[in-house]
Amino acid sequence: MRGNIFGERFVVVSFGESHGRCVGVVVDGCPAGLRLEKEDIQRDLDLRRPSNTTISTSRKEEDEVEILSGVFKGHTTGAPICALVWNRDVRSEDYEEVAYRPRPSHADYYAHIKYGGFNDYRGGGRFSGRITAGFVIAGAIAKKLLLETLGIEVVAYVLEIGGVRAEEFTLEDARKFRYLNEVRAPTTRAAEKMRDRIIEARGRGDSVGGVIECVAVNLPIGLGEPVFDTLDGDLAKALMAIPGARGVEFGAGFRAAAMTGSQHNDPLAIRDGIVVSEKNDAGGVVGGLSTGMPLVMRVAFKPPSSIALKQKTVDLREMREVEFSVPGRHDACIVPRAVPVVEAMVAITLADHAIRAGLIPPVLKPRGGDLEDPRQLL
Amino acid sequence: MRGNIFGERFVVVSFGESHGRCVGVVVDGCPAGLRLEKEDIQRDLDLRRPSNTTISTSRKEEDEVEILSGVFKGHTTGAPICALVWNRDVRSEDYEEVAYRPRPSHADYYAHIKYGGFNDYRGGGRFSGRITAGFVIAGAIAKKLLLETLGIEVVAYVLEIGGVRAEEFTLEDARKFRYLNEVRAPTTRAAEKMRDRIIEARGRGDSVGGVIECVAVNLPIGLGEPVFDTLDGDLAKALMAIPGARGVEFGAGFRAAAMTGSQHNDPLAIRDGIVVSEKNDAGGVVGGLSTGMPLVMRVAFKPPSSIALKQKTVDLREMREVEFSVPGRHDACIVPRAVPVVEAMVAITLADHAIRAGLIPPVLKPRGGDLEDPRQLL
Amino acid sequence: MRGNIFGERFVVVSFGESHGRCVGVVVDGCPAGLRLEKEDIQRDLDLRRPSNTTISTSRKEEDEVEILSGVFKGHTTGAPICALVWNRDVRSEDYEEVAYRPRPSHADYYAHIKYGGFNDYRGGGRFSGRITAGFVIAGAIAKKLLLETLGIEVVAYVLEIGGVRAEEFTLEDARKFRYLNEVRAPTTRAAEKMRDRIIEARGRGDSVGGVIECVAVNLPIGLGEPVFDTLDGDLAKALMAIPGARGVEFGAGFRAAAMTGSQHNDPLAIRDGIVVSEKNDAGGVVGGLSTGMPLVMRVAFKPPSSIALKQKTVDLREMREVEFSVPGRHDACIVPRAVPVVEAMVAITLADHAIRAGLIPPVLKPRGGDLEDPRQLL
Amino acid sequence: MRGNIFGERFVVVSFGESHGRCVGVVVDGCPAGLRLEKEDIQRDLDLRRPSNTTISTSRKEEDEVEILSGVFKGHTTGAPICALVWNRDVRSEDYEEVAYRPRPSHADYYAHIKYGGFNDYRGGGRFSGRITAGFVIAGAIAKKLLLETLGIEVVAYVLEIGGVRAEEFTLEDARKFRYLNEVRAPTTRAAEKMRDRIIEARGRGDSVGGVIECVAVNLPIGLGEPVFDTLDGDLAKALMAIPGARGVEFGAGFRAAAMTGSQHNDPLAIRDGIVVSEKNDAGGVVGGLSTGMPLVMRVAFKPPSSIALKQKTVDLREMREVEFSVPGRHDACIVPRAVPVVEAMVAITLADHAIRAGLIPPVLKPRGGDLEDPRQLL
Repeated sequence: MRGNIFGERFVVVSFGESHGRCVGVVVDGCPAGLRLEKEDIQRDLDLRRPSNTTISTSRKEEDEVEILSGVFKGHTTGAPICALVWNRDVRSEDYEEVAYRPRPSHADYYAHIKYGGFNDYRGGGRFSGRITAGFVIAGAIAKKLLLETLGIEVVAYVLEIGGVRAEEFTLEDARKFRYLNEVRAPTTRAAEKMRDRIIEARGRGDSVGGVIECVAVNLPIGLGEPVFDTLDGDLAKALMAIPGARGVEFGAGFRAAAMTGSQHNDPLAIRDGIVVSEKNDAGGVVGGLSTGMPLVMRVAFKPPSSIALKQKTVDLREMREVEFSVPGRHDACIVPRAVPVVEAMVAITLADHAIRAGLIPPVLKPRGGDLEDPRQLL
Repeated sequence: MRGNIFGERFVVVSFGESHGRCVGVVVDGCPAGLRLEKEDIQRDLDLRRPSNTTISTSRKEEDEVEILSGVFKGHTTGAPICALVWNRDVRSEDYEEVAYRPRPSHADYYAHIKYGGFNDYRGGGRFSGRITAGFVIAGAIAKKLLLETLGIEVVAYVLEIGGVRAEEFTLEDARKFRYLNEVRAPTTRAAEKMRDRIIEARGRGDSVGGVIECVAVNLPIGLGEPVFDTLDGDLAKALMAIPGARGVEFGAGFRAAAMTGSQHNDPLAIRDGIVVSEKNDAGGVVGGLSTGMPLVMRVAFKPPSSIALKQKTVDLREMREVEFSVPGRHDACIVPRAVPVVEAMVAITLADHAIRAGLIPPVLKPRGGDLEDPRQLL
Repeated sequence: MRGNIFGERFVVVSFGESHGRCVGVVVDGCPAGLRLEKEDIQRDLDLRRPSNTTISTSRKEEDEVEILSGVFKGHTTGAPICALVWNRDVRSEDYEEVAYRPRPSHADYYAHIKYGGFNDYRGGGRFSGRITAGFVIAGAIAKKLLLETLGIEVVAYVLEIGGVRAEEFTLEDARKFRYLNEVRAPTTRAAEKMRDRIIEARGRGDSVGGVIECVAVNLPIGLGEPVFDTLDGDLAKALMAIPGARGVEFGAGFRAAAMTGSQHNDPLAIRDGIVVSEKNDAGGVVGGLSTGMPLVMRVAFKPPSSIALKQKTVDLREMREVEFSVPGRHDACIVPRAVPVVEAMVAITLADHAIRAGLIPPVLKPRGGDLEDPRQLL
Repeated sequence: MRGNIFGERFVVVSFGESHGRCVGVVVDGCPAGLRLEKEDIQRDLDLRRPSNTTISTSRKEEDEVEILSGVFKGHTTGAPICALVWNRDVRSEDYEEVAYRPRPSHADYYAHIKYGGFNDYRGGGRFSGRITAGFVIAGAIAKKLLLETLGIEVVAYVLEIGGVRAEEFTLEDARKFRYLNEVRAPTTRAAEKMRDRIIEARGRGDSVGGVIECVAVNLPIGLGEPVFDTLDGDLAKALMAIPGARGVEFGAGFRAAAMTGSQHNDPLAIRDGIVVSEKNDAGGVVGGLSTGMPLVMRVAFKPPSSIALKQKTVDLREMREVEFSVPGRHDACIVPRAVPVVEAMVAITLADHAIRAGLIPPVLKPRGGDLEDPRQLL
């Protein structure tokens, strides 16, 4: 319980089910005075949507965000922002079987036990990737807040799919190319190979996993509240909330385990009167605090568990083992669609910590610019 | 920030504005397996609605609750329950003036300053009594949960209005008569006097305050988590969230301050093999823990600040003092309508503490009754 | 559980028992850079100590605060501050009987049930007034923080004892006289009467209750986070955590219930270019927000439950009703000693809300004054 | 702020500094009735201590735990448990230079900026590995609680050091051998190679990193509170709080990204009437919920940043780049000492989630066994 609330100050409350009425969020703690239009959110929601049928699900998600509260005259008011997308094109009949034939490596069986059989199992219910539409809504608000107040930009892209890894690219490449290809890779070359990998798996009725890398730039020094609410710890938790995430690493990450201190340490230097590190194996976070260098993290995603290939599961009504194919429509790879979700979770976490650190005030900029005189606020 | 979230385990998130699209809540932490129909909530919402135009606002609030998530096949699922009422019959034009002529003893001016002029001022926005429609939704769920699991019943009624106090009645009287009269008094006699008091004030363009008493019975011993999350402390906080509340007291309350220990102490005794207290000046809570005796508390409500009589305020555009009459429609007394709201806040707090104390499990009763065998859950 | 933690940003964690090793707190969230000496805390601890034996307990509490963490070179560091007082002069043998003969109107019996017989019952354990030594430690830090950053001052005094009420005094009187008399009354005249009242009750082996009034001045507009974390709601919860508190009210409080709107409303006016209210029946808080006017609240305290007079209780070993006198040493009135405790709880709540509102930064003033250049911080 | 508090129900509050008076914790929410002796904690603290000087620091940490509250007559009482170790053998003079010559890849510089120069920099202050002594104290309590109530056992061991990976071993091997060798490896063979690797690095004035694997067995199905408080998410956050952690993965982890769905999916089967998975690439957690299979996770640790080799840093007083060697005593590899710390953080997280899931009650087993009759509790 209370598991559906994230953050201390930029607080995201998630609600909704895959095949229920809607999927949405309440954001409590967004400062007043942020200019916010529906389009600011819709853009990211559209990026989350499958771009075409070659590599993605055939469920049409024409998600249009609706803002129910917290915005007035084009600005956030400081009150909770409730926003959601309604569920349409839902074919719940596909999922009746799930109620007694849990899909392997899905949460079906474990949710069935945990919630005493009362959970909404249709399409995975609360455990569906569809829940991330809400994350993206909250993330879009967080991204706008970070960009307009601190100039922080969050950029994610697909680093690896099915063992194919993008090589030799810059952050600039990623920024430029990722949305020009349907796999969200930082280079066209990698995108093609990854796409082939997905299509091949799909052809076999199988699926593939991958790795998303995310970089955030223009962070101030000192975001993060050690010893427990470290920046990397909160980011790790936020990212693990994305269905399919199996691991998170920062900077050199698991590679750091095989390095020596003299290799891994980032020497300090002075550039333009500012203290910086000469390289960034730390990935922008040391001791749980942001260092001012680019924040670099990677999330590993498992291959989607819903595959057309026959699998072994159990029939709970008869308590016997059976072979079955997962019903419904699936993605052979969800990694490309997870790109805006990763950005969203990173942005939500950074916004929360920026507010905690006192770097974003409760009111962005009073109307008229001066809190002293109430006339200026009108 | 984060101020719109209440509770640790039965967590209520409030959203919406008086003249926005809707007013609602998300409840995170309601156990799975509670039978819940729209009607369970609608009943309390209807009680909150003005019963007629004699003593109440002329705004028609035909609030019909809509449940957006967390309920499946007639039961709660353990997932967050989002439910709301849409705003209709809104006359926002009445409130444009409020933006620059704050109503005395309303939050208008203070919210204007706090939120840098960005707050939705229409009808008081977040500070409107209308927000309590959401409290009542969450409270109705909490009341059902408490009654069905622990047999706890929460009963509030109007004890006093405009100095007229109900005398000589029993809890049974209150239970029986309060909804048979429009002021929600425990006796018909008191109801009539109170009604007269309201009508008289209304006739003068004025308003009156009052006191609501609330009793909860069948509490187990030991609800409350001292030293800070005491049962009375959390109740006091919950009740102060109701617009207009100015004070809260338990048992003998402020009267206790003038008593001696030998008068105030409740002697312990044994009745039917159970340890009880012979009287209940403690009001059912000692040391922050429920004692098993009836929980008794009172909330003082100020008279509504919106009155037809001319008042002095300031014009913020011109920064000068002006006389004005509060625009819009008002209640001459909101105490009767606050009765289900008081019950709601008490029930929410008790549900939260009952779950914290391990007395209500995460799943009320698994389908089939046996968690060991997954077949039984289907 | 988690009941021993208060606050969102200036977070107080309480630990210790009346007859255990110590009583203390951890404060997480105190900004860095506050000059803090042991003496800043000791002063308030001394005020909490019984001044003489005429009206107070004979237990000698020579509490000397020890700061274990979070302070370095005379300033807070931003790390958690752990501070405590060690328990000395403990006569636990007095309390063995409590284990099976619960004292009426004490938490003994209810804690016994709640904690399954494992609670430390000696001297009331966690439910003892001694726990408030920790509150005072945290409160002293909060008071210093509020005064040095925002100029906020918190002043409490005894308004009423045993029905004797102080009349006709100013805040200035209270500030000046309260610590010049042992009952902490705002006038010498009231102090004498109150003292007589206590001595008389004590002489009869009885006890008396009272009311403490607390005023905080120099508050900015807008402290408080509605709709749930209202300033008055959080203050009410904080104050109810003080053992013996039975009710809390703000401004006109319960008296407001009998007023009309035209009487109770505080007209807005302009003084020196600033919007103020002409009177302060609101007690400085409207809609859960501070108004900038003096914050005024009152707490009712019941008479101490430990009295020498014979009382009826139950013997739990034999499950029969018995007469007994409460063993141990007691105060005939704890209200005077609660004065610094009330101030502490108010200051803790205000500090928490001031930080939440962004009015106190995480670092008070960097060494050298300029965060841009790390040299200045050395 | 509030960053030093972890958990929702089994709540750990950390305090203390490397070279301050002490390092400790307050645990709020430990159920009453757990038998707890100092020795239960001391055992794990001793395992955290360097076993000899070959591979570890020369600072002698003869940490003896002191329990200050929350334990009475050999059992937890349900009140907050404060426990700490005092700091001895502190050579702070070694660290004065750190104040103006931040050690590369340490938090020195970032903490200096974040806390405005007020942080206790001696030995890294709050950012020192020494803080984990507190984690181990809380973890020892959590481990005992988990074992005695649910039979859950947590076993960590060193999987890899400086690129040397333990191969071909069972959990039984790990349980048996890890504390028979000073690197905490699961096999003697691996231990020797790892030891050589550490000694070689140390000889060069360098350091090495590594990977710890942790397995928890006997978990019930359904621990974890999606969508945000997932079991793996909270574990990831908890583990990232250990100084030096750079990444966390579950089950197949990053390897899963290169697998296909048909490879990665764990088929469901029935064994002895129970639904299990035939393999465990999920690592015991799916959809954020425990599956009942062994929970398997890995944490990557960077090589210690304190090395004897010359490094480049900046002198903040003179704002110029300098060469320097890190002063003080260091470990060439902290991975072996982090083994009990990893176990502690995992146990704390599991205890928290087990209580949240209602699987561990607030009172373990009332004295006498029957809550109905208060006599039995005596």
